[in-house]
Amino acid sequence: MSDLVHFEDVRVGQVHRFGRYEVTREEIVEYARQFDPQPFHLDEVAARQSMFGGLIASGWHTGAMLMRMICEHAIPGTATTGALGFDDLKWVKPVRPGDVLSVETVVTDKQESRRRLDIGTVKVASRVLNQDGDAVMTLTSLVLYRRRSPG
Amino acid sequence: MSDLVHFEDVRVGQVHRFGRYEVTREEIVEYARQFDPQPFHLDEVAARQSMFGGLIASGWHTGAMLMRMICEHAIPGTATTGALGFDDLKWVKPVRPGDVLSVETVVTDKQESRRRLDIGTVKVASRVLNQDGDAVMTLTSLVLYRRRSPG
Repeated sequence: MSDLVHFEDVRVGQVHRFGRYEVTREEIVEYARQFDPQPFHLDEVAARQSMFGGLIASGWHTGAMLMRMICEHAIPGTATTGALGFDDLKWVKPVRPGDVLSVETVVTDKQESRRRLDIGTVKVASRVLNQDGDAVMTLTSLVLYRRRSPG
Repeated sequence: MSDLVHFEDVRVGQVHRFGRYEVTREEIVEYARQFDPQPFHLDEVAARQSMFGGLIASGWHTGAMLMRMICEHAIPGTATTGALGFDDLKWVKPVRPGDVLSVETVVTDKQESRRRLDIGTVKVASRVLNQDGDAVMTLTSLVLYRRRSPG
């Protein structure tokens, strides 16, 4: 029997803390040049004059950093087959050079799929935290897990 | 008087179509190596054996491509000051090498901020479309606009 974590093994209320991502000025600027070339993501001087008071990471970059930590720490050992999407994403606080991010996830619901007997959907509330323990981004994901015993 | 599009100028129901993003195999793999190193984003052979039947872009990469098109076509000329977050993001269809993406947005609601007299929130439903006109990703964003006449 597979020792991967399947749909049946997931418990509502389960908390998982993982990851460590050091945010660098170089990576913030490199990401922004490619995908989000706004002054407060690109240039320290322009950023200081913006409402953010200094260089901050693109919100989509923070999402990418979360994904990296999920790939390294949350996906291995589980029978997930991807995410359908997510809800209620909020950029709560700016992410700045030198920040060290981590992740806290809570399973808030699980449902067998009505259409596919081999799959279940798990609702996961995620918070990306900085080194002070403050949430910088929060979201709720719908993650697909394979079932051990297709219903 | 500024000719930027301010909160007062935004009309509910307004539709905007913009952008053109050619998705390359190289960029899919490069993004995945950095942020989402799963086999179906990295390796054509592994991807062919996956449920996706071939190489597909990371969902967060599709979001980054959307952001690039927004920076190029939707932000210039507007008095926006960023987004609070978004709701109801769905990855509807895989994005593959050779796809050419564009964006369609519809303004679905607008509200003056209760806390800040100089700001209003505009709700925008966005669809990222491929070259066949099929939605590959949909989401609803909460975008902040400056007001011409702080209430």
